[in-house]
Amino acid sequence: MQKSWILISENSDFPLANIPYGIITTEDNSFPRLATIIGDTVIDLSQLNAMGAFEDIEGIDDFAFDSHSLNDFIAQGKGITQAVRRRIQQLFGKDHAELRDNTAVHSDIFYKASDVQLHLPIEIGDYTDFYSSRQHATNVGIMFRDPANALLPNWLHIPVGYHGRASSIVVSGTDILRPSGQRMPPGAEKPVFGASQLLDFELEMAFIIGKENRLGQPVTTAEAEDYIFGLALFNDWSARDIQAWEYVPLGPFLGKNFASSLSPWIVTLEALNEFRLAGPVQEPAVLPYLEYSGNGHYDIALEVAIQPENGEKKVVCQSNFKNMYWNMVQQLAHHTVNGCNMRIGDLCASGTISGDTPESFGSMLELTWRGANPIAMPDGSQRKFINDGDTVIMRGFAQKGDLRIGFGEVTGKIVNAMTAL
Amino acid sequence: MQKSWILISENSDFPLANIPYGIITTEDNSFPRLATIIGDTVIDLSQLNAMGAFEDIEGIDDFAFDSHSLNDFIAQGKGITQAVRRRIQQLFGKDHAELRDNTAVHSDIFYKASDVQLHLPIEIGDYTDFYSSRQHATNVGIMFRDPANALLPNWLHIPVGYHGRASSIVVSGTDILRPSGQRMPPGAEKPVFGASQLLDFELEMAFIIGKENRLGQPVTTAEAEDYIFGLALFNDWSARDIQAWEYVPLGPFLGKNFASSLSPWIVTLEALNEFRLAGPVQEPAVLPYLEYSGNGHYDIALEVAIQPENGEKKVVCQSNFKNMYWNMVQQLAHHTVNGCNMRIGDLCASGTISGDTPESFGSMLELTWRGANPIAMPDGSQRKFINDGDTVIMRGFAQKGDLRIGFGEVTGKIVNAMTAL
Repeated sequence: MQKSWILISENSDFPLANIPYGIITTEDNSFPRLATIIGDTVIDLSQLNAMGAFEDIEGIDDFAFDSHSLNDFIAQGKGITQAVRRRIQQLFGKDHAELRDNTAVHSDIFYKASDVQLHLPIEIGDYTDFYSSRQHATNVGIMFRDPANALLPNWLHIPVGYHGRASSIVVSGTDILRPSGQRMPPGAEKPVFGASQLLDFELEMAFIIGKENRLGQPVTTAEAEDYIFGLALFNDWSARDIQAWEYVPLGPFLGKNFASSLSPWIVTLEALNEFRLAGPVQEPAVLPYLEYSGNGHYDIALEVAIQPENGEKKVVCQSNFKNMYWNMVQQLAHHTVNGCNMRIGDLCASGTISGDTPESFGSMLELTWRGANPIAMPDGSQRKFINDGDTVIMRGFAQKGDLRIGFGEVTGKIVNAMTAL
Repeated sequence: MQKSWILISENSDFPLANIPYGIITTEDNSFPRLATIIGDTVIDLSQLNAMGAFEDIEGIDDFAFDSHSLNDFIAQGKGITQAVRRRIQQLFGKDHAELRDNTAVHSDIFYKASDVQLHLPIEIGDYTDFYSSRQHATNVGIMFRDPANALLPNWLHIPVGYHGRASSIVVSGTDILRPSGQRMPPGAEKPVFGASQLLDFELEMAFIIGKENRLGQPVTTAEAEDYIFGLALFNDWSARDIQAWEYVPLGPFLGKNFASSLSPWIVTLEALNEFRLAGPVQEPAVLPYLEYSGNGHYDIALEVAIQPENGEKKVVCQSNFKNMYWNMVQQLAHHTVNGCNMRIGDLCASGTISGDTPESFGSMLELTWRGANPIAMPDGSQRKFINDGDTVIMRGFAQKGDLRIGFGEVTGKIVNAMTAL
């Protein structure tokens, strides 16, 4: 594994082999611009570009480094974005003296991670949420429908998905206001209005579209990875009481669209190549347009922790992105098989990622089994769902021997709507 | 009613009292720009602005007239957009000589409607589809669920809605490829893949968001009209066989997101003021956040015609926008009551607008009662759903005495995916 001359602590999510992309502003420069991170050092790619670091990459768009989103950068295609990543890996490689010894410019391009403001990295046109973990769909089916027929008849044939709300996707660290809405209390005659009593997280991963297909032109499973720029952590906040009352027959709406949180660094698909693995055998056999070859799943360890206000955090879930029944290329092939067009920056999320064991369930709904088994917190309190003042922290990384490619974290603190006003 | 010195034929949708907004290009000028229409005359607002027509409007953004969408224009707020509309009405008023007599400039600002290319007028961030006609929800409930309990328990309490796909919204006149997808044939053991056999239209109206609310900040029913810029006709194409198989439990997805068609001229809410009327009594009483005062419904006649390839067209549906149970201010108050944020250009559609009588049903699903009662076409053929080569034409207008405010039409022709490639 190639080493860098930048200090990288052990178990860093961001070694030289990663090179994720994000959008920063800093105290000395309020213009949003592209950046990457190595160890705990954020690198200003706009500045690096202005110094001529990428001038040998043919056809590169200089302006794409100075933007409030990664969209224009991504739109250049993998030929360019992969060349930029390789060039960064070269510049900061252990034995590459050019920048290392030019210490006069270090203060122009380097920031401590704690000193930058990270922004929503993508301008998201459309957001789609899938429902692709078999265990999650089974758990929900047992709780809300019929334990004997937990999976609905279409589930093993279709990567079930639905459209979500793009406007309310926020970057990690943004406070989340507890939403109000209608709910039908158990046994009540009519619905009541008020703050959600059953606020939940959903542990998900999201992929970002990096190439457009024309309306009417499906993307096959063989082509699909070429359309995926990279991945991030995603918390699809859910108000279970609002959702339960509203969702028939057209699906979740206000129970979801008050907020979703995205991690700030987009990890490229290339960086994850070492962590591919085979998915589950799919039985019954899928229709031909959903068949794929090769290893389409990824081994990415995921965990969720809850940290009460001024309290000690507790890990409540340990799962893995490999716990998917339907993988990303199947999701994308399905999404476009009717001709639906994808645009640069569109976001597709996995759905809650739950494994086979109870500690791997990716939501409080499943972890506490709808509140029947509350989680004991270090301070002696209990959690059935998420309390005001709680911060939910999701982390994810892939590891093989010395090589670790991480996503950092996506966090959000629940704020009471009344106290926030 | 004020007359114009521009020729306006009787029953034109676009008298001086209308002044809708759209985006055009022309043979002599390929730059997209803002326009309006009076009678059959399209007026280049970019050119009019360049001539100084709007220079007395304080704070106006000159650049907003030269754009591929209305978004920047709308974002200026109703103070500006209403002043522009009044100024246009003044300039083209019967007795206003300034432009009328300056014939040298007429060729710069006027185009025949048939000579301009109309584009999708809005850059749509998020698209939401409601389900707010009681008769439509009842019809669907009878056909697919339980005639005795056709309306689901939440329907009279919630303006049920869901998120749609923004990327595949196209302007009127765009051909629509018949989508392929999975469906489960009646009695089959497993799903099959192929072109949709049950392609349908949905007669809807859409409103366009003209003012943003911050995430976490609900819009009340009293405030809601200030957030609505204008309305247009909307055909939410639906593949009923794909939809029926996929939609549990998360709602419609590929059965809808292959295309929706929007009419090119956005009619402002101000232009429709004369056509307000009271909505139905809502019983059971709605929760306080859904209460509203005043006349929140609009009397807008709607019709749908089918025109076969080289054939005679037949009107198959006559409905009215007043056939809504939930009105726009209730929809918007509901949509934001959990804090969900609206952005300029977001589109909210009504859902299929079906009245009480069979000829007013707003979809083939309802008109033919799932194919049981086919419609006889003038050429002797029958329609259960929409055939390849059929053009679906929706029109809408409001009329009171001499005053007619129309929407023009939204059309789309169904093209076989195989022959289109």
